[in-house]
Amino acid sequence: MIVRPMQSWFRMLFIWNGSVLQTIIPQLILLGLLSTLAVFTHGTVFGEKIPLSPASFTLFGLTLAVFLVFRNNASYARFIEARTAWGNFLIAARALTSQILSYVPGRENRELKLLLANEIIAAAYALKHQLRGSDATEDLKRILGPQRARAIQDKAYVPVYLLKDVRNRLAHLCQTADHGSIRWMLDTQINEMEKCIGACERIKSTPIPFAYSVLLHRSVYAYCLFLPFGLVDSSEYLTPVLCVFISYTLIALEAIANEVADPFGVAPNALPLDAIARTIERSVLELCDEDIPAELEPGSSYQLT
Amino acid sequence: MIVRPMQSWFRMLFIWNGSVLQTIIPQLILLGLLSTLAVFTHGTVFGEKIPLSPASFTLFGLTLAVFLVFRNNASYARFIEARTAWGNFLIAARALTSQILSYVPGRENRELKLLLANEIIAAAYALKHQLRGSDATEDLKRILGPQRARAIQDKAYVPVYLLKDVRNRLAHLCQTADHGSIRWMLDTQINEMEKCIGACERIKSTPIPFAYSVLLHRSVYAYCLFLPFGLVDSSEYLTPVLCVFISYTLIALEAIANEVADPFGVAPNALPLDAIARTIERSVLELCDEDIPAELEPGSSYQLT
Amino acid sequence: MIVRPMQSWFRMLFIWNGSVLQTIIPQLILLGLLSTLAVFTHGTVFGEKIPLSPASFTLFGLTLAVFLVFRNNASYARFIEARTAWGNFLIAARALTSQILSYVPGRENRELKLLLANEIIAAAYALKHQLRGSDATEDLKRILGPQRARAIQDKAYVPVYLLKDVRNRLAHLCQTADHGSIRWMLDTQINEMEKCIGACERIKSTPIPFAYSVLLHRSVYAYCLFLPFGLVDSSEYLTPVLCVFISYTLIALEAIANEVADPFGVAPNALPLDAIARTIERSVLELCDEDIPAELEPGSSYQLT
Amino acid sequence: MIVRPMQSWFRMLFIWNGSVLQTIIPQLILLGLLSTLAVFTHGTVFGEKIPLSPASFTLFGLTLAVFLVFRNNASYARFIEARTAWGNFLIAARALTSQILSYVPGRENRELKLLLANEIIAAAYALKHQLRGSDATEDLKRILGPQRARAIQDKAYVPVYLLKDVRNRLAHLCQTADHGSIRWMLDTQINEMEKCIGACERIKSTPIPFAYSVLLHRSVYAYCLFLPFGLVDSSEYLTPVLCVFISYTLIALEAIANEVADPFGVAPNALPLDAIARTIERSVLELCDEDIPAELEPGSSYQLT
Amino acid sequence: MIVRPMQSWFRMLFIWNGSVLQTIIPQLILLGLLSTLAVFTHGTVFGEKIPLSPASFTLFGLTLAVFLVFRNNASYARFIEARTAWGNFLIAARALTSQILSYVPGRENRELKLLLANEIIAAAYALKHQLRGSDATEDLKRILGPQRARAIQDKAYVPVYLLKDVRNRLAHLCQTADHGSIRWMLDTQINEMEKCIGACERIKSTPIPFAYSVLLHRSVYAYCLFLPFGLVDSSEYLTPVLCVFISYTLIALEAIANEVADPFGVAPNALPLDAIARTIERSVLELCDEDIPAELEPGSSYQLT
Repeated sequence: MIVRPMQSWFRMLFIWNGSVLQTIIPQLILLGLLSTLAVFTHGTVFGEKIPLSPASFTLFGLTLAVFLVFRNNASYARFIEARTAWGNFLIAARALTSQILSYVPGRENRELKLLLANEIIAAAYALKHQLRGSDATEDLKRILGPQRARAIQDKAYVPVYLLKDVRNRLAHLCQTADHGSIRWMLDTQINEMEKCIGACERIKSTPIPFAYSVLLHRSVYAYCLFLPFGLVDSSEYLTPVLCVFISYTLIALEAIANEVADPFGVAPNALPLDAIARTIERSVLELCDEDIPAELEPGSSYQLT
Repeated sequence: MIVRPMQSWFRMLFIWNGSVLQTIIPQLILLGLLSTLAVFTHGTVFGEKIPLSPASFTLFGLTLAVFLVFRNNASYARFIEARTAWGNFLIAARALTSQILSYVPGRENRELKLLLANEIIAAAYALKHQLRGSDATEDLKRILGPQRARAIQDKAYVPVYLLKDVRNRLAHLCQTADHGSIRWMLDTQINEMEKCIGACERIKSTPIPFAYSVLLHRSVYAYCLFLPFGLVDSSEYLTPVLCVFISYTLIALEAIANEVADPFGVAPNALPLDAIARTIERSVLELCDEDIPAELEPGSSYQLT
Repeated sequence: MIVRPMQSWFRMLFIWNGSVLQTIIPQLILLGLLSTLAVFTHGTVFGEKIPLSPASFTLFGLTLAVFLVFRNNASYARFIEARTAWGNFLIAARALTSQILSYVPGRENRELKLLLANEIIAAAYALKHQLRGSDATEDLKRILGPQRARAIQDKAYVPVYLLKDVRNRLAHLCQTADHGSIRWMLDTQINEMEKCIGACERIKSTPIPFAYSVLLHRSVYAYCLFLPFGLVDSSEYLTPVLCVFISYTLIALEAIANEVADPFGVAPNALPLDAIARTIERSVLELCDEDIPAELEPGSSYQLT
Repeated sequence: MIVRPMQSWFRMLFIWNGSVLQTIIPQLILLGLLSTLAVFTHGTVFGEKIPLSPASFTLFGLTLAVFLVFRNNASYARFIEARTAWGNFLIAARALTSQILSYVPGRENRELKLLLANEIIAAAYALKHQLRGSDATEDLKRILGPQRARAIQDKAYVPVYLLKDVRNRLAHLCQTADHGSIRWMLDTQINEMEKCIGACERIKSTPIPFAYSVLLHRSVYAYCLFLPFGLVDSSEYLTPVLCVFISYTLIALEAIANEVADPFGVAPNALPLDAIARTIERSVLELCDEDIPAELEPGSSYQLT
Repeated sequence: MIVRPMQSWFRMLFIWNGSVLQTIIPQLILLGLLSTLAVFTHGTVFGEKIPLSPASFTLFGLTLAVFLVFRNNASYARFIEARTAWGNFLIAARALTSQILSYVPGRENRELKLLLANEIIAAAYALKHQLRGSDATEDLKRILGPQRARAIQDKAYVPVYLLKDVRNRLAHLCQTADHGSIRWMLDTQINEMEKCIGACERIKSTPIPFAYSVLLHRSVYAYCLFLPFGLVDSSEYLTPVLCVFISYTLIALEAIANEVADPFGVAPNALPLDAIARTIERSVLELCDEDIPAELEPGSSYQLT
């Protein structure tokens, strides 16, 4: 995620970091060259005039807009749902910790308290690594110790397995009938965390149907490719400027939508899972009255991962 | 579902598998021929000029866009809802398994544990077959054994019947008043699974109202049919290219929307129910510390069923 | 609801049943005549040319599109919400039945079991009749017997009254403190059904604000009425074809939206409440291991009521 | 709310009551005069031609459409949410009444029953008056008696205060540990009603941000004001007809959106809170087997308040 | 939030406070100057005609509309979600207070009652300050006393910490098994408040992806910059008026969307957190039958903070 203080309206026009401009420079240069060529040849190819009226573009623009809107909305909905799932994980992790500290027999025992808190934190980190396809070993070792980390790191669904363990421990602590309602209260929060995990797995494993991406991609590029020949008669030497700018908006929107649709990636516009996992760690530890690590800060290119 | 690694922007333009191009080739060829004919006859039919100005297309394009947007959004909403229902089934199946392993008296008994786990898994497979209209016998036999499979395979609503059985068994295990809250906890997860089943049945049994499909279909084809005569004057020999491309985007969008609106089908853009059911099986078994089968991989045409 | 197997793209263009064409034939004929007249008079009325340029239609088309999109989305949202409410009724009815069979003391008593199951089924049928404004007596007699039917048929809110009765009976069966959690579990499902009833009543009693319908209606017809005079200059003898087709798409969309916005009606695109109530009956009875009636099949005009 | 039987397509074009035409007549007459003037002066002002091409309107129409769609959707979402909150109030009121009648000790006491039922009904009426800013005294007196009415009418949040009272009484009736689950069940419904109250207060106290209204308002009127000068060249003497009609659709949509955005008002397209409160009263009393008052009927101008 | 009584349609056109006009005056003046210049030079720059046809603007306007709609909807969704979270905080605060007064042992003790009520109120104020990045010390001191304020003011997540304290105290008061269900009931409301806190933190920490803002910003300004050269031929001396007005609508919409997307800010169109926190205080105190402070009123510029 890009974290930048709001710029003045003027400086905002010339920002480089955080716009997606970097990733689409090659295509824009190609289109710039093509349209410059079109200006010099007055829109002819091999001496033959390319007959494209602006009206055709209006027709075509219609379906293009339909695709762009759909694709962008669907992508952003994924982003928001993923963010909400992580937000709910934080909420449930806090609630569970706070409930343990208020209700569970043996809650005065600092070791037990920390053991449970760490398993909750470890589940958050394990989820992050599972979603990004990265290796969770380091984080698990740091939080749970090397022995426990080794025991679970080969599981296919590590976060769920960790939560099963939390549930098991708590069931042990609250096994009398008198603790029935406490057990259930705690179970509800564990279940809440499992829902977040399940939601993230679902988003990860089911992208927007591939055919939509192909169709939008082709429409965008076909549109950009034809554009110089449609504009050259009326816009003359301004054609390259207009073409590159319009192409920029279209290709950039597709690029942003791509990044946002894969919210667990590490692209500049994906979710800052590192920072979110850290917040979960901080908040759970603070509730336990432990020292808390510092918040993550955006790096030099204003990116928070 | 099509599972392909993201391609470069250039190769994405020429992908064959996973675009819906295969299914709409005949219509596109017909439209290509028609527009070529229109070029040769300069837009006349039996010597009579077809008077279609681009302005008419703008008017018509408006309602077309309204239909396309609606139809596509409604279809995708069905896809997402269906996927979410299956995702929730996985979440509830995990929670129920994990709760059984933590709370139910007799949970040390491996046989009992597996019996319950298998009924949950069988419900997922039975749901898949019910939604696809395929025969569940093979899967039920494999998971529950031939005797049990025979007893339930003729039921009209097999998954619900299986869950009733799970509920019954658990009620038996937790029948003292002391187990009241545990019984309810388990019941909540069974209820959650029944909600997913009900949601899938609803999506399956209530398509998007038929009249919408007819209206969109007619609008799309009428538009594509008139297009060559509207463009031939201004686009000359480029008409076939433009017509086929615009028709491609329109007809392809309709085709994708059709596939996506029937998310339990086996079309390339439908849900990969086989893979999802396998994930449920894997996750439930892993929680029971049993060996787990391999994940399903996409086949040669990148399709996951 | 229209239930038809998917047609080939070609046959789909000429379908009669299930399109709304039947209900809007008179208007289309009138508009056809009007535009034919406009062709013959070259767009003059009493010798005076009607000065309408296509540009005016673009301006006007904009607000028309805004209205159409809104009206259609609002209507479809009602349809979906109504369908979901009925789907949730089925889910809750199943859950309640299944819970009664697993937990309630005296559940071995077949008569008691059936009595409760029948009251649930009767509530579904009573809701259907309440929403359609039809007479529930026949169905209530069939399911509950004539005596009971007579006692409740004059209530203003029959389904709610029936569920109160179910709640009462269950409260009676589970009145010791030990049954506290079971009582509540059952109550939750009854409450769920009451939510579905309330949602349906709400949809029924609060249509889309009338002023929207009036505004859209006037816009559509004004547009269709002016259309021939706007197109006649550029489209000449094709004007009637274009006008009738564009009018067809607009008026048909309004007609579909009207049908869909009243989802409890008996129009071809309304919900098949008969079939849904039957499904509820089937599923509840199957859970009780009773014989189940056949599913309803669409009639000769492919309509399921 | 306007309640009218569906009219034939033809009569629907000339309806007066229930369209918002009444409230916007002055503006339309002004615009009609202006456009008539523009026709006579051939689009000149003080002898100077106003140079406005239809293309400018297309540009401008774009942002106008964006505003209209947003404003209308946001308004309608408020309307629907408000209606749903009231619908949920009804559902919770019914559930609470029905639960009291089934579970609460002392439920055979008719006086107690009615006392609780009346407090629920009074909360509904008090909410109505709070939202409309009207005086609740009359209704509170009628339902609760003058003494009780006097004690609460000066509270800032009467409905919440009434529900606190219901909660208190029920807590009193169910104070043994055995009644723990019943107490909670009842509390859940009271909580549900408090949610509805909170939702309504939220809608009431947070209108759509004012700047949106200003921006849309100015855009609509600027558009309507410029329209005659843009159309006069191509539409000649038809200009007033077109201008008034297009202005009618735009201004009417803004007017409807305004009414709908304030769903607790008494405008023709606001919610019929009187009728809804009456339905709550009827349904709660019917569950108590008491006589029920008649439903409210729309008045002479088809309006239900 | 701007709170103004509805104005007549005419005065609404000339409102200054509450429109965003103030914040965008400089840009509008610049664009006004530019377009005046364009009129005087007849659209030439350094004697060279800038060839921009209105058709190019139609093409460009399309993507602009797509961006504007998306950006505005996403912003408003944040506003609504933030408002709803605060609304739910109020609902949960009321429910918790009312439950404490009805069920908790020792509820007759006024001091205890007020202590708990004040912690709830303090959580609301602490949340406000956390979201606005302002200093909570003053408010905490006023509500909780200086000693308690000092103990918690350095926590990273003050509101969550306060609620943990409430939970702890309540756990203490209801620690026997008999109070199991009461404890849980209360816990549910605390959890509800924690959800609201989590939701607000999520909205605050995850803005709309930065790249969207950049892209929209550039599109809007590029469009406004080119506009005079595209309109000057057809609109002549009217160009500045049209350009400034169209630019006003575009830039104002972007400005409003910016304010609304940061709903916890202090811009005129952000949420009135001061007033909402006061309402929470008032309602909780009224339930405790304590004196309540006055509601906040909008200041001289009609703004409620």
